[in-house]
Amino acid sequence: MSQILEEKLGRLSKEDQNLWALRHTAEHVLHTAMQNLYPKLKKAMGPATPEGFYFDFDLTSLDTEQGKKVSEADFPKIEAEMKRIIDLNLPMTQKYVSAGEARKIFEGNPYKLEWIDDIEKRGEKISLYSMGDIDQDLCSGPHVARTGEIKAYKLLSVAGAYWHGGREVYMLTRIYGAAFGSGEELAGFLNRQEEAKKRDHRKLGRELGLFVFSDLIGKGLPLLTPKGATIRRILERFIVDEEIRRGYQHVVTPPLAKTDLYRTSGHYPYYKDTMYPPMKVDEEELILRPMTCPHHFMLYKSSPRSYRDLPVRYAEISPQFRYEKSGELTGLMRVRMFTLADAHIMTPKEGARAEIIGVLDLIDFVNKKLGMQLGRDYRYRLSLGDRKDTKKYYKDDGLWDEAEGVLRSVLTERNSPFFEAPDEAAFYGPKIDVQVRNVAGHEETAFTVQYDFVMPKRFEMTFTNSHGQEEQPVVIHRSSLGAFERTMAFLIEFYGGAFPLWLAPVQVALIPIAERHARAADAVARELKRHGVRTEVDLRSEPMQGKVRDHTLQKVPYLGIIGDKEVASGTVSVRTRDGKDLKGMSVEGFLRKLNNELELETA
Amino acid sequence: MSQILEEKLGRLSKEDQNLWALRHTAEHVLHTAMQNLYPKLKKAMGPATPEGFYFDFDLTSLDTEQGKKVSEADFPKIEAEMKRIIDLNLPMTQKYVSAGEARKIFEGNPYKLEWIDDIEKRGEKISLYSMGDIDQDLCSGPHVARTGEIKAYKLLSVAGAYWHGGREVYMLTRIYGAAFGSGEELAGFLNRQEEAKKRDHRKLGRELGLFVFSDLIGKGLPLLTPKGATIRRILERFIVDEEIRRGYQHVVTPPLAKTDLYRTSGHYPYYKDTMYPPMKVDEEELILRPMTCPHHFMLYKSSPRSYRDLPVRYAEISPQFRYEKSGELTGLMRVRMFTLADAHIMTPKEGARAEIIGVLDLIDFVNKKLGMQLGRDYRYRLSLGDRKDTKKYYKDDGLWDEAEGVLRSVLTERNSPFFEAPDEAAFYGPKIDVQVRNVAGHEETAFTVQYDFVMPKRFEMTFTNSHGQEEQPVVIHRSSLGAFERTMAFLIEFYGGAFPLWLAPVQVALIPIAERHARAADAVARELKRHGVRTEVDLRSEPMQGKVRDHTLQKVPYLGIIGDKEVASGTVSVRTRDGKDLKGMSVEGFLRKLNNELELETA
Repeated sequence: MSQILEEKLGRLSKEDQNLWALRHTAEHVLHTAMQNLYPKLKKAMGPATPEGFYFDFDLTSLDTEQGKKVSEADFPKIEAEMKRIIDLNLPMTQKYVSAGEARKIFEGNPYKLEWIDDIEKRGEKISLYSMGDIDQDLCSGPHVARTGEIKAYKLLSVAGAYWHGGREVYMLTRIYGAAFGSGEELAGFLNRQEEAKKRDHRKLGRELGLFVFSDLIGKGLPLLTPKGATIRRILERFIVDEEIRRGYQHVVTPPLAKTDLYRTSGHYPYYKDTMYPPMKVDEEELILRPMTCPHHFMLYKSSPRSYRDLPVRYAEISPQFRYEKSGELTGLMRVRMFTLADAHIMTPKEGARAEIIGVLDLIDFVNKKLGMQLGRDYRYRLSLGDRKDTKKYYKDDGLWDEAEGVLRSVLTERNSPFFEAPDEAAFYGPKIDVQVRNVAGHEETAFTVQYDFVMPKRFEMTFTNSHGQEEQPVVIHRSSLGAFERTMAFLIEFYGGAFPLWLAPVQVALIPIAERHARAADAVARELKRHGVRTEVDLRSEPMQGKVRDHTLQKVPYLGIIGDKEVASGTVSVRTRDGKDLKGMSVEGFLRKLNNELELETA
Repeated sequence: MSQILEEKLGRLSKEDQNLWALRHTAEHVLHTAMQNLYPKLKKAMGPATPEGFYFDFDLTSLDTEQGKKVSEADFPKIEAEMKRIIDLNLPMTQKYVSAGEARKIFEGNPYKLEWIDDIEKRGEKISLYSMGDIDQDLCSGPHVARTGEIKAYKLLSVAGAYWHGGREVYMLTRIYGAAFGSGEELAGFLNRQEEAKKRDHRKLGRELGLFVFSDLIGKGLPLLTPKGATIRRILERFIVDEEIRRGYQHVVTPPLAKTDLYRTSGHYPYYKDTMYPPMKVDEEELILRPMTCPHHFMLYKSSPRSYRDLPVRYAEISPQFRYEKSGELTGLMRVRMFTLADAHIMTPKEGARAEIIGVLDLIDFVNKKLGMQLGRDYRYRLSLGDRKDTKKYYKDDGLWDEAEGVLRSVLTERNSPFFEAPDEAAFYGPKIDVQVRNVAGHEETAFTVQYDFVMPKRFEMTFTNSHGQEEQPVVIHRSSLGAFERTMAFLIEFYGGAFPLWLAPVQVALIPIAERHARAADAVARELKRHGVRTEVDLRSEPMQGKVRDHTLQKVPYLGIIGDKEVASGTVSVRTRDGKDLKGMSVEGFLRKLNNELELETA
């Protein structure tokens, strides 16, 4: 077992360690079954995953009709072979061999041979795992004792993959599977998967017309349609207003700068591979920014500061650019350009604690507004440094101890649900990560709050303290709402597209029953719009029921139907997207209802 | 006289042609005077300008102490020599010479020799102008008859300049001067200059703390401070809300795309030199966008369109990037990245007229809100194509005639002050330019409204018309408020920094007289902020009069002073930035006053 894996597993509970071993064995069962069914394939490699396993196969030597190698249509056959192997209840046994022996065993498999070279280079022992006597593979374990322990598993999907995630030309075939401790857990997982598929923001984004991509524009660069841009604008104004209310000062700085700026900050060596290429403009070398901090530092340094001016809380709706591998781009979730609700707080060290409390207050407030419950939908992670790793982390044990202590005590005193994660800090200090659970049940870091004692030194940022001396502030890096793209992706899935009223791009769809009701519908629309209600009138010459169905599918919160009866009585027949009939209402009554709902959402 | 100059002068009134000749002769008087004073200099070249003239000198061979060649301190001496020449009342006479003769005359002056080569290459005659018998220069005129006609002139400034505006290493010395038909006009011009200097947005931007530049970030890339960003945000929300009210749909598209996109649009050959260098990202070549149109076209093309959906009016607060020579960068006015209030309207051809009227309505509305009067502060320019220039303009005479006709008739029917400018159109169609007069009295194109019949073809944009056939829309390109950077620069100068209440970054500065009044000031500030008033409390331990002076210099519209009397009576003593004492007011009364003023500004 590699050292990294050993450390990772060591942090899991006994139960999770067993589950990991079970999934790892299921992965072996998969590749053994595949080997049996397709003897000409070459095995590459595969791991256990948080839901099961996957394995990459080189299928180039397979003879198949129409170039189609293996597809989901083959799953029943493969699963049957897996079942046969599991039922044999074969023992999983480990042995060590020399590099020479290993090379002989895996002769003709370039993937395994490369792997053997790597193990040898690292000076580790070469371990094999056998499954009874029907298969053996390069593997350092751990595994469950026998294949028969695998009770609940299922193949999920097939995808393309590159060897080591690199960009070589030939594509491997990756088969994903799920494996759980019980059939019940597997069924629960498959249900969540089903639900996640329905709520997939890429699917809903298309169906609800929120964003598109364009081949002529480029990969990972979404275009927000009017509806998508409306959600984005609502979120942006909400957070800007709230931050200003809380004493932040919004600024606007350029989304590119000289590479020298990121050399000064020390970001360049860490971020170089995920930055866009530099651009030579006259004598300057410019580069698109991968983060905002040094820009805010330049603003801070543009005039002398006194302790009376601090804390300075610079916030920005900040476009940023990061290179992501094309295989990792995912709708709005993983993009090559994003816009972060970013901020940097410059504070005397003794004020840092209060500022971090303020930031967590804001995050809890924002998340509540977005409908998320602390504990259920998100929790905090305290990401710590490693005093021994002086390459990865700035060396100053005292400052690390102090900063980690501040973050830990704030989280503890607030009774915020959190856990600690060693070796996950930024290079300039520890951080609190906002861990959000997505629809598929996975936890992801949405954004972070960072305590930074390094940048003020690198940028020679100072203020005059109350004794007239020059002093260095500390910097709190934080987001309050994350990147708009990612947050929108999350919200689309969280609400399954049925946004709360304040976020819905169209709040009311008015449906005149016949053409003669169009004028009345327009008048109602004007009145609603005048009061800030985002309203659309559906003038298509379709039957009313079809229009109702369309807007319900579009998850418009309220439909207002206008026919003879409504025109005569000056009312609108209101229905909700859930199909509830609220009957006829005056426009004033409808407006009152909408405003009440908006006020409840704000509270 | 070159053909271009001939055409340009031909369009001027008789009076303006005379003034141009006068200024041109004044330029000759300047370089003759300089030649007399500094015989070792080399003359490069110089033109008449809309206020006088300038001339570039190569002073490398001059022997002067401390490397200082010629400065404004030398102006009295130079002006005295100019006066001497003018008083000689020398005749200006033209003669033609062969290239060989010309080369002999200007032997040893590389600038003149290069110029002679150019004239020869163009196949034009080589013309000299003599001033009496004391000087002769390469020049095609026209001039006034005698130097004595120059009555009102003044040298203005010295600056560096490059030969032909290029980026060669050696810098020439440029001397600027003013020349007018009468002493009165010259005095008027000098007064305006003085006022323009006081209102220079770079100077005011620094004094009022609105924006800064940073060497580590790069040239032409301003950073907006909290105050500058506040103005920008107010303008942005104002225009977005107004546009949505008028049926625009705001979208968000990426500020970069594959160069292929700009090749498809045909922009690439025209804009290549003013674009940033491309960036290779995986197999894609990306480039920062110099305009938004093709991005909006991609969005338009992302779903099929029917005549019922048109007009589609896509608007965007759109960041754009253009390379400007470093010598031309000017504060917020000329930058390397700007954000345009941009839009593109896709409409059936027969709807174009109504859309253009709608755009001009919006522009007049916005300009009025910004305090500008049509006729006084801005007018329109109808920029036409040239049917003969098929290299510069897309060839289709019928479409050009039709489009120019639509624009002309709209301007005429609105009684909008406008003039026509031949050969100033975009390559894809004619346009209306919004010509704004700046503080120095110069007219500049702030932004444009363009009629485009080419892009729909290039991008194969279509809609299904009411007969079920595929039809091509026309595109109206327009801005409503221009680029925020440029508009802010203009507004700073227009208002001399004393922004109207709705635009003022700080609307009220509260000044507690002593420390014991700080709590009361804070309470008033909270109440004002709760009502959306941008308020600051000045807690510095300075004398009250100093604080009043500071905030008056900062042009904060209202100062609220709070001392014992005010605390006792629950009032605020209000003063305006013009020094008017409005006496004590209750907070409610003050709020009412502010709201009344804001409502008047909105009306």
